[in-house]
Amino acid sequence: MKIDVRKFNLSDAEIPRQWYNIAADMPNPMQPPLNPATGKPATAEDLAPVFPMNLIEQEMSTEQYIDIPDKVLEKLLIYRPTPLKRAYALEQYLKTPAKIYYKDESVSPAGSHKPNTAIAQAYYNKEFGIKRLTTETGAGQWGSALSFSCALFGLECKVYMVRVSYDQKPYRRLMMQTWGGKCIPSPSQETNFGRKMLAEDPNCPGSLGIAISEAIEDAVTSKDTRYSLGSVLNHVMLHQTIIGLEALKQFAQINDYPDVVVGCVGGGSNFAGISFPFLRDKIYGKQVKVIAAEPTACPTLTRGPFAYDFGDTAATTPLLPMYTLGHNFMPPTIHAGGLRYHGASPLVSQLVRDKLIEARSYDQLTTYEAGILFARTEGQIPAPETCHAIAAAIEEAKLAKEEGIEKTILFNYSGHGLLDLTGYSKYLEGDLTDFTLPEEEIKRAIAAISDLPRI
Amino acid sequence: MKIDVRKFNLSDAEIPRQWYNIAADMPNPMQPPLNPATGKPATAEDLAPVFPMNLIEQEMSTEQYIDIPDKVLEKLLIYRPTPLKRAYALEQYLKTPAKIYYKDESVSPAGSHKPNTAIAQAYYNKEFGIKRLTTETGAGQWGSALSFSCALFGLECKVYMVRVSYDQKPYRRLMMQTWGGKCIPSPSQETNFGRKMLAEDPNCPGSLGIAISEAIEDAVTSKDTRYSLGSVLNHVMLHQTIIGLEALKQFAQINDYPDVVVGCVGGGSNFAGISFPFLRDKIYGKQVKVIAAEPTACPTLTRGPFAYDFGDTAATTPLLPMYTLGHNFMPPTIHAGGLRYHGASPLVSQLVRDKLIEARSYDQLTTYEAGILFARTEGQIPAPETCHAIAAAIEEAKLAKEEGIEKTILFNYSGHGLLDLTGYSKYLEGDLTDFTLPEEEIKRAIAAISDLPRI
Repeated sequence: MKIDVRKFNLSDAEIPRQWYNIAADMPNPMQPPLNPATGKPATAEDLAPVFPMNLIEQEMSTEQYIDIPDKVLEKLLIYRPTPLKRAYALEQYLKTPAKIYYKDESVSPAGSHKPNTAIAQAYYNKEFGIKRLTTETGAGQWGSALSFSCALFGLECKVYMVRVSYDQKPYRRLMMQTWGGKCIPSPSQETNFGRKMLAEDPNCPGSLGIAISEAIEDAVTSKDTRYSLGSVLNHVMLHQTIIGLEALKQFAQINDYPDVVVGCVGGGSNFAGISFPFLRDKIYGKQVKVIAAEPTACPTLTRGPFAYDFGDTAATTPLLPMYTLGHNFMPPTIHAGGLRYHGASPLVSQLVRDKLIEARSYDQLTTYEAGILFARTEGQIPAPETCHAIAAAIEEAKLAKEEGIEKTILFNYSGHGLLDLTGYSKYLEGDLTDFTLPEEEIKRAIAAISDLPRI
Repeated sequence: MKIDVRKFNLSDAEIPRQWYNIAADMPNPMQPPLNPATGKPATAEDLAPVFPMNLIEQEMSTEQYIDIPDKVLEKLLIYRPTPLKRAYALEQYLKTPAKIYYKDESVSPAGSHKPNTAIAQAYYNKEFGIKRLTTETGAGQWGSALSFSCALFGLECKVYMVRVSYDQKPYRRLMMQTWGGKCIPSPSQETNFGRKMLAEDPNCPGSLGIAISEAIEDAVTSKDTRYSLGSVLNHVMLHQTIIGLEALKQFAQINDYPDVVVGCVGGGSNFAGISFPFLRDKIYGKQVKVIAAEPTACPTLTRGPFAYDFGDTAATTPLLPMYTLGHNFMPPTIHAGGLRYHGASPLVSQLVRDKLIEARSYDQLTTYEAGILFARTEGQIPAPETCHAIAAAIEEAKLAKEEGIEKTILFNYSGHGLLDLTGYSKYLEGDLTDFTLPEEEIKRAIAAISDLPRI
């Protein structure tokens, strides 16, 4: 039998040794983050109580390539390089002439791409003498990735998990505990802000904004402690580029190159990870279509204005230049919790603005339909977030069929859905709702941030 | 940086093309299964209402190698070959001179080794003209593997899930549904046996024995339907040998060979899968220690007599020659549900009897301690069943340290624990109990089967 090769593995020795920093190649310079008190560009000192200086330097770096430290490589090798896979069965089902590839980031122990930066952040904090990290988590993907990474470097990890998720998703919490992370429901009695919220409402269900505020307060008031963020910031995008750098090597080995690169976008980190190395080629003249797939329930890139906004609901961060629906915007509770972010990475935002990236939005029902089709053809059950990338890839494959063109499509399989199956069940039972944001709500959200400086 | 290679991948083209049938090489011939009504060896016709004839032929085959059909290979390639991994961080923690390798079967979409036979069984049934498969499931690993495999071949799949697990483990049920399997709680209103049980006790929590009886009744009374079993039988062991055959190739490529091979044993399928190809070498003169790790809560191989016993609690199967604690024995409810089987594969049993395999038992607390250590060093969270193999591997690594010998240890990482985290939580909170079966209970179990023909 002639084998149709489905999986393209790099050997451990072929793992990339540097991250790619797209800030070095941006056709238009990035706007700086602003200190909201002064209105002037934020300085390294502004960030020092929250992050270690070595990560702040990376956040501000314009070096094109940055070496991955040996001890980070050693831990990334637990699950990297990840396989590039060809979705033959999906292609056959769609009767498309397109070749569909996906980069499988679900093979990490935490089940998503998140450890790519969690490992790096744990390492840099440890190097800087930090003994304890705090963070927030919504659905739990980021909290489990950071707990896993802290276990590898012997750091303490404290995760403030939104209470409603803490109660509804016990498995994510148990993962964190198994790795030694301490996970508590937010609001908690352990911070001033948490106590204040509980005094106002003892049954407060919590929110990502409250959890971020608690985690930052804990970090800046505790000894040898810093805060860790799983998306949005430049250094997070940087750490994720190992995904696309590996994919470039894998395509070179099979003498192919994608015509289309797709990722889903919440804060933007898995999307940046797969796409930035290809966008580098595009900036230097290569033809490649890059698609950012977001939910119609939170259409930041497709509908939001480009403005200076806070990264968190509590308005404690520097002002970041990004597409945003406003830091007080509360997206509907779609199952793809990781895409419910009011803004988007400043790097991704700038590249959308510069038309190097095309943003599209997909409604919840379309994405679950795509996820079910993928599970029943290719076998793996994708995370609800990942279903957005699959929906876009399927749309492109159908287009290729209409046009009769043999395209090569690559999407990022950012995580598995094994701990997020409730949405599938609801979809199959016909109980799932489309949460596409109505026009008037988008207008209301944008009107609410009319005071923010537009760019 | 010099990379310490952690993962040894075979390319898709290197996937084994044949299964290995140890029945061809057994030093002592197998005892035949008996028809309980006649006391004579069971015939192919006895089994025909339950299984398709092509699988019955495999069950009875003594061919040394059997070709894997192309369409089975094509689907196995979704996740196979699986990586062989080196557990450097665990070795360093243990300060052992031993090299510890594990074969990672958790990378399958269902999260365990079970699809290796589920895919093959779905294929052979489809080839035989069968349109629908029935089975039972306890914790849900097997039911999800069969649902996944039936989705790939377009077969209907009906899973009778023990009611108490159905209620307690909704995620496993949701996995089956996502792949299109129909999963209902057992006892059900859909079979005579189920209705009888519910009439006696409307709140009956169900048992594996009841669920098997329902699944078999459904298969033998429905059109174009057969029953599928996930362990114990010869053809299941055969399909799993691809694990060890891949490991042999992987060790050959790195110029190494294990001194010790370890697997956990419930019915015996993942253990047979990793060990039979190495046992072949042992039969032909190679030195290799093979360890079967079972729970002290269900010490079949270490404490049971070798006798003819029924494979199911309802006493409907042929009598199988095996180590057994009796088909009415109800093991304590340890978290490693997949190891709570009263008997063991006849092939594995015979090889234990012939002293080619050494059986050991581990208590629940020791296995969770091993699982937590593995999660915090190597990163991956193992299934409770897999923790038994890890406990044995750690015991061997400590022995190597005492003896000062650089041994090579291989164990089968049979599945991940992401949907079975409750046990970890209880262990960490000090709520986990040791269920080692007391001496008097073992004696009582053995006395209860004094009428079964000893071998």
